[in-house]
Amino acid sequence: MILLNDYFVNREEVTIDIEDRGYQFGDGVYEVVRVYNKQLFALQEHMERLKNSAKEVCLKLPSDLKKIENKIRQLVKENNLEDGIVYIQITRGVAQRVHNFPGNTTPTLVAYTIKLNKPIENIANGVKTKLVEDIRWLRCDIKSLNLLGNVLAKQKAKDSHCFEAILFRKNLGAKENIVTEGTSTNVFIVKDHIIYTHPTTSLILNGITRQKVLDLIANLSLQVMEETFSTEEITSADEVFITSTTDEITPVIQIDKVIINKGIPGPITKQIQKEFKNLLPEPTYS
Amino acid sequence: MILLNDYFVNREEVTIDIEDRGYQFGDGVYEVVRVYNKQLFALQEHMERLKNSAKEVCLKLPSDLKKIENKIRQLVKENNLEDGIVYIQITRGVAQRVHNFPGNTTPTLVAYTIKLNKPIENIANGVKTKLVEDIRWLRCDIKSLNLLGNVLAKQKAKDSHCFEAILFRKNLGAKENIVTEGTSTNVFIVKDHIIYTHPTTSLILNGITRQKVLDLIANLSLQVMEETFSTEEITSADEVFITSTTDEITPVIQIDKVIINKGIPGPITKQIQKEFKNLLPEPTYS
Repeated sequence: MILLNDYFVNREEVTIDIEDRGYQFGDGVYEVVRVYNKQLFALQEHMERLKNSAKEVCLKLPSDLKKIENKIRQLVKENNLEDGIVYIQITRGVAQRVHNFPGNTTPTLVAYTIKLNKPIENIANGVKTKLVEDIRWLRCDIKSLNLLGNVLAKQKAKDSHCFEAILFRKNLGAKENIVTEGTSTNVFIVKDHIIYTHPTTSLILNGITRQKVLDLIANLSLQVMEETFSTEEITSADEVFITSTTDEITPVIQIDKVIINKGIPGPITKQIQKEFKNLLPEPTYS
Repeated sequence: MILLNDYFVNREEVTIDIEDRGYQFGDGVYEVVRVYNKQLFALQEHMERLKNSAKEVCLKLPSDLKKIENKIRQLVKENNLEDGIVYIQITRGVAQRVHNFPGNTTPTLVAYTIKLNKPIENIANGVKTKLVEDIRWLRCDIKSLNLLGNVLAKQKAKDSHCFEAILFRKNLGAKENIVTEGTSTNVFIVKDHIIYTHPTTSLILNGITRQKVLDLIANLSLQVMEETFSTEEITSADEVFITSTTDEITPVIQIDKVIINKGIPGPITKQIQKEFKNLLPEPTYS
C-alpha cells in the first residue's frame, strides 16, 4: 500500500498530477526512515526534520505531525515491512505553473515502503569514494527534492566505480576546497585521535545518523570537532567514514587514488560502529 | 489535449508515477515556448536548448528532436491555441529511487498549452524588482526542474510587491555581489549608452529572448558588452530591463528603493522593444 495524503491506496491507484509543483519545480521536501525488525528507527527525529524542511520553504504540512507519524507507523504495519525504509515526500501540491507560491494549494503527501537489507559488506569492509566539486545550492540544510546536483555527483562516483562522491566547495568565501558531505551521506575524518565533521551550516544536511554519532561520541572518551576540513586534510586523514540512514556507519578505504588506513576500516571507526549497533534493533534476518 | 510521450491524451488521463525521477529528484529539463497568433515563436532555438539541457544531464531524449518539434506543432493545432505558451518537460522516467542514474529508464515527456496574453501593462510601464541573493546551484545554464531556489527568490519579490527578483552572487570567487539574472528572466543594464548583460557562463540561463536581443542590438548602432556588473552598478544604471519568453522586454523602473530612470522606461529600452516587436507575429487580440 501507498500512503497518499490521508489514505492507504494501491500502487496503481496513485496518480500524480502533471502540475504538482513537486514535478515542475522540485518544490517539496522528503525523509527516508529506517525500519529494523518492524520498528521505525528515530522516527521522531525524522519527523522533526521534515517539519523544519517544510518550514524553511514555507510549505504547510498537510496535517498535524503526530498524525503523519501515526500514518507512517500504520503504513509499515499494513505492508508487513520487516527490514527496509519508508520514503516520505511532501510537495506544495497542484497549481497552474508560476514560480512564486501559488495561493491555497493542498500539499501532496506520498509515502511508501521498500524492503532493504543492511549493507553488511560495505559496513564491514568499507567503500571507495571520489572527490567531486559541490555545485549544489546554498541551502543543503533543507532536505528538498532539488537533488540533481546530488544525482550528477553520485553518477560521477559510479562512473569511477566508487560507492559515493565526497563533495567539496571551491571558491566559496576565503577557504578553498572544503569538504562538505557526500551526495547522500555525512563525512567524518579521524586525525591524531580527533574526529572532525563539517559544522551544521546551510552547506550540509544535518543527518540523523550524524547526530546519533555525535551523541555517542560524547559518551565515549573521544574528542570530536565540528570544524571544516579540506580535500588535502581528508586524503591525509588516519580514518574516514560516512554516515546515513541506510549506510549507517560505512568506512571509507579509498578516496580517488589515495588509500586510507591501508585500505581497511580503522579502529575508531570500528569502535563507533560497535556503539552505534547497540542503538539499533537487530534486523530480523541476522 | 496533453502530449504524453508520443500520444495526445485528455488531461484527466495523464498520470505521473510517484517514482518518476522528475518527482523525486527534479531529474529533468524543460522549455517554455511562446505562441503568437497560432505560430510558435523561435521553436527551433527552444528545441536546440532542450537537447543541450538534456545532454548536460545525460538524459536521452525520448525521440528524435524533429519528431518532438512536430508533435509540439500538432499540439498547438489540436488545442486551437492562438496566444499563449507551450510548456514541455522531459524527465528521466520511472525507476526505483537511487541517486545515480538508474539503468534503462524510458524518459517521460509531457507538454501542454496555456492561453496567455502579452503582459502589455508591464511592457509599457515597467516593473518593480527586488535584489535577492542567488543561492542556486552552479549549473544554471541547464534548464532543469531544480527550481526551488528560483521559487523562493520569486516569492521574496512577491512578498515585497515586486514583479521579479534580481539575483546576485555573494562570496563566489574574487568578485562580490555580481548580478546574474532574474528568477525567470535575463537582466540587462544601460550605462552611458552601453548595454551590459551577464556573459553566458554556467551561472545564467542563456535565454532565447536574451539571444534575440543581442542579435538585434548588433544590427543597431548600439554597443553591447557581455560583462558582469555588480548590485551597485545596476542600481546606478541609466536603464534596466529584463527579458524572457513570456515577459519579452520588460523595463525595470525600480530596484528595492532605487528608482531607475525616474520611474519610466528609458529610450534605449524602448528602441529595443520596438525592434523586438518587429520580429513577432502580431497577437490575435491586438
